[in-house]
Parts: sequence; C-alpha cells; structure tokens
Amino acid sequence: MSTPQYKRTHDCGSLRKTDIDKKINLSGWVNRRRDHGGLIFIDLRDRYGVVQLVFDPKISETLHKEASKLRSEWVVSVSGTVSHRGENLINPKLATGEIEVNVESLNIISVAKTPPFSICDDTIDVHEELRLKHRYLDIRRGSIIHNLEIRHKALHVIRNFLNSHSFLEVSTPILAKSTPEGARDYLVPSRIYPGNFYALPQSPQIFKQLLMVSGVDRYYQVAPCFRDEDLRSDRQPEFTQIDIEASFLGSEDIYSLCETMLTKIFKECLDIDISTPFPRMTHNECMERYGTDKPDLRFQMPLVRLDDIIEASNFDLLKDYLQNNGCVKAICVKNGADFSRREIDEFISFVSPFNLRGLAWMKKTQEGFSSNIVKFFSVDLLQKLEKRMKAENNDLILIAAEKDTIVNQGMDHLRRHIAKKQGLIDKSSYRFLWVTNFPMFSKDETTNELKAEHHPFTQPNHEDIPLLETNPLQVRSLAYDLVVNGYELAGGSQRIHDQDIQEKVFNALKLEPKDIDEKFGFFIEALKYGTPPHLGIAFGLDRLIMLLCKTENIRDVIAFPKTQKASDLMMQAPSEPLKGHLAELKIKSEATEIHWN
Amino acid sequence: MSTPQYKRTHDCGSLRKTDIDKKINLSGWVNRRRDHGGLIFIDLRDRYGVVQLVFDPKISETLHKEASKLRSEWVVSVSGTVSHRGENLINPKLATGEIEVNVESLNIISVAKTPPFSICDDTIDVHEELRLKHRYLDIRRGSIIHNLEIRHKALHVIRNFLNSHSFLEVSTPILAKSTPEGARDYLVPSRIYPGNFYALPQSPQIFKQLLMVSGVDRYYQVAPCFRDEDLRSDRQPEFTQIDIEASFLGSEDIYSLCETMLTKIFKECLDIDISTPFPRMTHNECMERYGTDKPDLRFQMPLVRLDDIIEASNFDLLKDYLQNNGCVKAICVKNGADFSRREIDEFISFVSPFNLRGLAWMKKTQEGFSSNIVKFFSVDLLQKLEKRMKAENNDLILIAAEKDTIVNQGMDHLRRHIAKKQGLIDKSSYRFLWVTNFPMFSKDETTNELKAEHHPFTQPNHEDIPLLETNPLQVRSLAYDLVVNGYELAGGSQRIHDQDIQEKVFNALKLEPKDIDEKFGFFIEALKYGTPPHLGIAFGLDRLIMLLCKTENIRDVIAFPKTQKASDLMMQAPSEPLKGHLAELKIKSEATEIHWN
Repeated sequence: MSTPQYKRTHDCGSLRKTDIDKKINLSGWVNRRRDHGGLIFIDLRDRYGVVQLVFDPKISETLHKEASKLRSEWVVSVSGTVSHRGENLINPKLATGEIEVNVESLNIISVAKTPPFSICDDTIDVHEELRLKHRYLDIRRGSIIHNLEIRHKALHVIRNFLNSHSFLEVSTPILAKSTPEGARDYLVPSRIYPGNFYALPQSPQIFKQLLMVSGVDRYYQVAPCFRDEDLRSDRQPEFTQIDIEASFLGSEDIYSLCETMLTKIFKECLDIDISTPFPRMTHNECMERYGTDKPDLRFQMPLVRLDDIIEASNFDLLKDYLQNNGCVKAICVKNGADFSRREIDEFISFVSPFNLRGLAWMKKTQEGFSSNIVKFFSVDLLQKLEKRMKAENNDLILIAAEKDTIVNQGMDHLRRHIAKKQGLIDKSSYRFLWVTNFPMFSKDETTNELKAEHHPFTQPNHEDIPLLETNPLQVRSLAYDLVVNGYELAGGSQRIHDQDIQEKVFNALKLEPKDIDEKFGFFIEALKYGTPPHLGIAFGLDRLIMLLCKTENIRDVIAFPKTQKASDLMMQAPSEPLKGHLAELKIKSEATEIHWN
Repeated sequence: MSTPQYKRTHDCGSLRKTDIDKKINLSGWVNRRRDHGGLIFIDLRDRYGVVQLVFDPKISETLHKEASKLRSEWVVSVSGTVSHRGENLINPKLATGEIEVNVESLNIISVAKTPPFSICDDTIDVHEELRLKHRYLDIRRGSIIHNLEIRHKALHVIRNFLNSHSFLEVSTPILAKSTPEGARDYLVPSRIYPGNFYALPQSPQIFKQLLMVSGVDRYYQVAPCFRDEDLRSDRQPEFTQIDIEASFLGSEDIYSLCETMLTKIFKECLDIDISTPFPRMTHNECMERYGTDKPDLRFQMPLVRLDDIIEASNFDLLKDYLQNNGCVKAICVKNGADFSRREIDEFISFVSPFNLRGLAWMKKTQEGFSSNIVKFFSVDLLQKLEKRMKAENNDLILIAAEKDTIVNQGMDHLRRHIAKKQGLIDKSSYRFLWVTNFPMFSKDETTNELKAEHHPFTQPNHEDIPLLETNPLQVRSLAYDLVVNGYELAGGSQRIHDQDIQEKVFNALKLEPKDIDEKFGFFIEALKYGTPPHLGIAFGLDRLIMLLCKTENIRDVIAFPKTQKASDLMMQAPSEPLKGHLAELKIKSEATEIHWN
C-alpha cells in the first residue's frame, strides 16, 4: 500500500526557525486566505496550531491559480520548503510566526460548505444553540478543543496518581438497578423480560462498596453517572464522577490523598501551586459563618450572629423574629458606606426572592454609626456591635432576621452578590475547604419524614450513636465534602461496616425489613459476609474541569453535551424509535413531536 | 480525629525475612484457622497475599481464647511482631512463607456468615450461577481479582501508549441516538419528550468520525458499548471497546501503532515478547485457505481447493457439486491415518450441522493412498493430489464438496475440531494476523438486498470504485480486522471523506435521500464542512483481557457481568420500576415476573 498523499511530516503548530530550508508536508484546514501584493497567503490550521503558507506566482503560476480557489475550512495537503519570514513580518502571536512555507505542491482533499459561524475567530459570540447544533464545528473553533485537552490531561494525572497508590480501576455496570440515591433514574426496558427495566446508575455507590466487600481494597473509576432531573444550568443528564473507595483507611488518609492528587492536577494542568493541607470546618460552623455548606473563601465577609445584641436593644421589629425561633445575622461590607441608598435598596430587593423580607443597615463613619436604626442601640451595644462586626470607618453593616435557614440562604447569596459587585473575587485563586461532620439526617419538608442526608450507609459519628434512638436529627456523620470557590467539588464518607449500627440507622429512617429488602436487600446480604471498614469520595469531574478551564458552563467541558432539556441538538436525540422496536419491548407509548428548529 | 484501630503498616502479602522483629499492624480476612499443638494459626488474607498469624497461649491466654472464636471470612486487625518460621516450617508456596506474626493484640472488626462456597480454595468448582449471585465473594476468591488486575494493567499500558502518541481521550455520549450498526439498540425513554427515546451506543462510530471533522486529529476512548441481542456465550449486553480514530494517517500507520501497542501490553502484562510486524492476508485468501475470516494460525492444516483434480477424476458424486456452482476443498491431517473408521465417522457427523452432507477421505500409507474412493483417480491425479495436499505417509485427507460458504464453514470448524483433538494448539502462543480487503457489501440472505459489510462509511478500494455502479458485490474495501488465535480482536477501516464516493455507496445500497436523511442526516451534513481523510480501529477490550487471562469465559474478566439472558443475578436486574415511574414516562407495559431462584 502506498503512502497516502496527505501524510504529514509536521503538524501546523510545530515548525520553527530551526526548520528553515527543510522540505516538509503539511495537512490541515484553511483558516484564512489573503491575497496580498500578488502573493497568496494561506493560514493552515490543525489542533496543534496555525502556519502560514505562501503561493508565489513567480514560482508557479498554476499553483498560485489553484490556491486562489481555496476557501475557509477546505482541507488541503501541501509540500514545500520552510523559509524565514523576514524580520519585519514576524508574527509574535503565532508559535510558528517566525517562518512560512513556500508551497511546491497542493492537494485539495475536501472542499467545505460555508460554516454557519466563523471558525477562525472563536471570540465572535455565537448563539449556543447554533454552536450545539454544529458541535463538530464549535469544537474545531479552538476553545472547546482546548478544554478537552485539559480534561484529557487531568484524567491522565488522576489515573497515574491513583495507580501509583495501588488503586485498581474497575468498571461497574451501566445497565444496573435502581439504588437509593434520591434522584430519578433513567430506565432501560428489558426485551427478554418485558415490563422489567434496568436503571442507569446515578453513581456506582453500591458497586464500589461491594468491591470493598470483595477485597479489592482500593478502587477507582472514571464513572459515567445518570440522573433524570430537571436540569440546572450546571448539570447534565449524564455526567462523570471520579469515584474512589478504600478499605482499612481513615478519613485523614482520604483527605491527604485528595490533597496530593489535586496538587498534582493543578500543577500539571495549570502550573499552579495550591497549598495543602486544606483548611477544615464542621458543617455547623460553616452554616453559622457563611450560611452555606459550600462557602466561597476567596473573600471574607462572614455572617455574624447578633441575637444577643438585638435582644438587648430596643429594635422590636427584629426582636419579634427572635421570639419566633428566628435569628439575626449580619455582614460587614468593607468600604460599603460608599453604597448609595439606591444600591442598598437594590440589596434589599436582591434578598427578597429568598424570603428575606428586609435588611436593616448602618454605615460606620468617622462620626460613628449612622442610619435610622442606630437609635435602637445603647452606646455600649453599639461598641459591642462594632467590635463583633470588626467594623471600621466607611464600612456598611447589613442585618437580616428570620428563621435560620432563610437568613442563611439570603445572606449567603447577598454575601456573594456584594463580593462580585465590589470585585473582591480573585479569579486566579483557588480556596479549598473540607466541610466535615455533616448531619446524618434531615427532615423532608413535604413529608416531614427523616431522610438520610448523604445515604443510609454513612457512618454516624461514634459519640452520636446513642442519639440515633433519641434525637436522630442531632446525629452528625463521618461525611465530608470538598468545597472550592463556592462549589462542591467532591463528597464522601466513612461507610457503616457494623451491622448493628446499620440496623439502628434503618430504624431511625423507619425502614421496615420489607422495604430494606426490596430497596437493597442484596447489598445488606453482601455486607454480612465479612465487610472491611471502608470509606470513599467522589469528585464531580465536569466541575473539576470547569474549574481548570475557568468556565461556568458545564457544556464547555463535554465533547457532545445536552441542553437543559436533556436533548442533543446535533443528533436530534431523543427521537422516535424504529418501527416495531416498542412492540418487541412490549411497551406502548404515544410519540410527542419534537420541534428541532 | 484519631487513627482508626484497623490501620495497617503492611498488607498481607508484603512481609519478608527482612521484616523480622518489626512491630507491625495488619488487617484482613481470616482465610483459615488451624489449632495445632496448643497454638492457633490464622492465615490472614487480603488482595495482596496471605500471612500466617500465631496465637500462643503461653504469651496471652486471653488472646488465644479470643482467637479460638475466629471463623473464616471474619475481618480482623492485629498488631504483633514478625518472627522467623524456623527452617522446617517455611512454606515456599507463600511469598510470606518464611515469616509469621506473633500476635500481641487482636480486634475483631466484622464477623461473617458462612459463605455459600469456599473462598480460600478457588480451585473448587462452584456452579457459575451461585458465583454470580454472590459475585462479591467470587471476586474475593482470587482468580477474578487477578483478572481485574490484568485488566487494570492493560488499560494503563494502553492509555499511556496512546497518550504518548498524541491521542486525546474523549468521552462520547451514552444517552445517544440509534445509529446504523446493524444490531438492536437498547432504548431509554425520555421523560421530557414522552414517546421519544435515546439509544445507548452500539459503538461510538459516528461520534469518533465527528471528532475527526472537529479537528481532534487523534482520538481514543475506552468506550462502553451496548447491544440488545440474543447473547452467545462470549458476548455481554454491555461491553467495552478501545476505540481509536486518526486523521491524515494511512492504514500502515494504524497497523504499526496497534502492533507496538500490543507488544507493550503483552510485555507488561504477561512478560511475553510477541513478534511484529504481524502477517497479513486478504479476506479472499483467508476464506480460501481457512474458510473463515478469523483463522487460528497456531496450527496449519489449510483448506486446499481440489476443483480441477475432482473435475478430471471419475468421482461423479463430487463432480455433481462442481456442476452446481459448488467447490471441493480438502484438508490434510498430519498423522491422521491413525484415526479409526469410527473416528472418521465422528468427523462426518461433526460437520453435518454445518450442512456438509458428507466427507470423502483417503489415508496415505507407505503403500500409497487407501480408501474406497482411490479408484476414482488416475495415478497421475493421485500424484497431483499428493503434491498439492503435501500429503506424507500416515496422513489423512478429508474432502468436502458443497457450495463455497458451506464448505468453508464446515471445514473451518472441522479443522479446529481436529486440531483440538490432536493437541496441536499451543496455548502459550499468540498468532496475530491482519485480514485486509474485506468485501464492501454482502447480500442479506433473507431480503436478498445489498448491505454494508462493515458500515456505509467504509472507503472502497480505489481501483474498485468503478465497480460500485456495475458490480458492487465485487467491490473490496479498505477495512481490516486484527485476528488472533481464531478470534477477531479488533476491526476498523479507512472512512470515506469524499462526498461523491459516499453518494455512490449510498446508491449501491439503494438508499433514498429521505432514508439517508432520517438515518444519519446530521452526520452527512457534518461531513460537508471540511472532512479530513481519517481511519480507525476498535479493539474488543473484553476479548483482549480474556486472551491475557487465558479464559474463554467473558464473565471472568468483568467485575459484575450479566448472564446470557442479560440479567444480573446479584442485583436481580432488570426489575419492576418504582410505582409511578412509568406514568411519568407516559409508558405502558405489563410486568412479567422473573423467577430469580
């Protein structure tokens, strides 16, 4: 078989001054054509870069004529000689900018229709729907391919790191069974057993615990996960977890393993040194101080509790909240005294969707506090307030009163809103935090029933085990989250390996033996055959890559993503099944028409 | 947080003579307990090995008593001191066989129910259904975990190799759309668009070609693939491909890339040097010589065509086949003259399920050929036959006549059957073969219509392109398979990047523009925006691992496999969906009951 004519000696990004006078072959896409002073210049592009081709009519009129036909996105192969550009023509923005290629032969491999948007300039804003419809062109533009390269590199670092620590990469089934993860499963009808369905896994949780029972000792997987939920903008129906589980280790080992792994990822992918160990905070402290379990620590402005100060004041409006089991928390906005009355009103409107029906405020000036609520406080109280809030001249204090959960949610959002407005967020900084001691249970607001906050296999804190029977809502668990810049990056826990404790947890959840058996009977059975103590963690890979790529759009880090309606605009999926397929599955369903345009 | 009591200083496989007198902590499973001369010996096991623990009542009566309670598969942690076993007690079968551990403290971490089959002796034959039901225990037995370790290692080698050759690992969607792979898709109902379905990918074929259009240049993926087919014993409903695609390369590059990759895999995983380059054979030659496109080359015994010799003979029975478009092929079985008449009759029965209604035969002895068909041949013809069959004394010649396809199929099976019977197959040898120039099309035997042998995007051989319009069944394609020891290990092809050729292929397949648009309209559209020449290959990962693990059972190389009825005996999947779930999907289906026991 002969060598194909389009075979390359170099890619479009690699030629340098040291290659001058070399005979080379290149293939790629026409990025731009410029006709200039009788010469034709073609910027030839591939994944690796761009290189300038020159067609000189004095050298070959035929070639020059051929080159004049070239249009953007045509695929061509050329051979030619590398030459110097001349000092004043050097393009410092291009890695190949010191050279050009004098073309001696040209092969047009594929012509191209005019693309629906510009490929060569990916700074031009194109509607995302159009980009998704022609995703193959969107990827070709450059920034998506760059993100895919970062994703590739991060995965390479992760795998090498975990392999070097004796972790075994094991794939677990995708045609699986519903497991108690809380979200809605995607179902797959069985043809052999009509009316029965597989479920796509929401996570490999059950499998990875079974692998520990199997003695695999250390496991990881780059695991595809699926949730059929109404999608927020940073979610996808299929997403990827770096799923890790280990036996006979403690949470300190997991923290340190993850910290070292992230250090390597950030170093290799971004050449950034992150500092370890990461700080830690209990869930309680976190909620108290930031109103959220995933605080953005790139700036301060903590929530400060003022219950006692308000109680001692004459501020009756807020005192009423305290009497109704509410709380009062405030933030101190550095240099916030510059905000106008209109801006402060804007903050008040900002928190109202979170059910905070107002904010009290004071400005600290050289003359002391000013605002129409100062009158409710004695001088002593104001001093106490000033100290507690660490208020300095020109600061603004914003005070909220309501039920804990409402104050926390509203002030968390407000804190981030103001930080953005004040430009306090250093986008090049990564502030990691371990949040520990999550509550074991929470109350379902609609049913008022207890539910597992993480999952029912999470180990409760040893000292809280007696509370399982008396006051389960007070039970803390050995669950931990890794948070960075306001996002949950990973979450995990120590699992229960003691059958008595497992039973107490099921009792607290009011699960009857029948329910347990139906939901995860085989798993409970498995745990009876000698379960090692084990724990694990799962990273949201897409979130990690978003962080590395500095994008807020999850679709920017996935090759072929879906829309918020879980559809693929390029393939036009989902779609009507082939004729007869549903009959084979013994399924009946009326098709609704999807309008793709 | 305090260090958990079960934390190890060593695993159960790593202690050696050099560790004597060290204080160590171990955790693992009780493999066996032996009470012997007042001492209790526990073999402690984990993934890494087995180590002997000693409990001496003279050292601690309490500990000794505690140890007497231990049963198989309990999880325990101990601390103790490593000591020498004494020369005559050394166990050379055990990596840790020179030492033992004198236990100074014992913690029982988990007790265990008696397992349904022996864990410590995995040579005991256990019914596969029982093993699959308790897969977590089956994995713990050792040989499955060993296979998972090989799988892990092979993947590590593959990824490192492809990464070092600039291949980008890209994940493609699992919630995808039906593509023309030929087999039945698994469907996933959409909740947002009722009556519409995603399809799980049978392979990432379309996606990887789109990635080439995207300029990814070199792609790979360890890709989960799904086919809802009636399963043969070496198939699974979900399986894994090492999927590779590249632009601007030729098939020689792909051959050499795969050969180097396999060399590395076999070296790293089995310390075996395989020899490259692999031999090649066209599909035609392969069918002619072995009757199959995946010949086992660990032994010879080729099929030899005898049409002309039979034509010149008086063997009317076989001549009739020739007149009916049939053919005559024979194999020469070395030392086959030793087979009894009964054994030869057994061969004749063996081929009859393949529609071969008989075999003629001759033995070559020192006296010449013997059998009741020798009379049909002249001395000259017998000499010609002897030479062509390379028949020597004590050989047996078996002759079949029928239509090509029937002779090929029957003689292929017979050839392998006899090789097994004669013990010709060297199980430690790996004979690779590239099969090239596959036919572009074949005729569907039921509909009599032309179909794509590989897929409709396969590049036809350049010199055969005119035949697309005149005699498509004669068109060969740039498709190739990699075969080893009688199995297809990988398959791929050069793809069409020229729209005119693509159209000719669609025409040959009698696909109307409407069909094309419905089936893969978006893909054909994508190819119009500047498609580079590209080609690729996909390895069956499970098959590769089976080869490395020397097993014929695909379930031995998958952590949680499914049965031939596509069910998971451990999880009991598929299963009835949760109440209300089908209503949400606007699907109706009557559940059939599955009997799991």
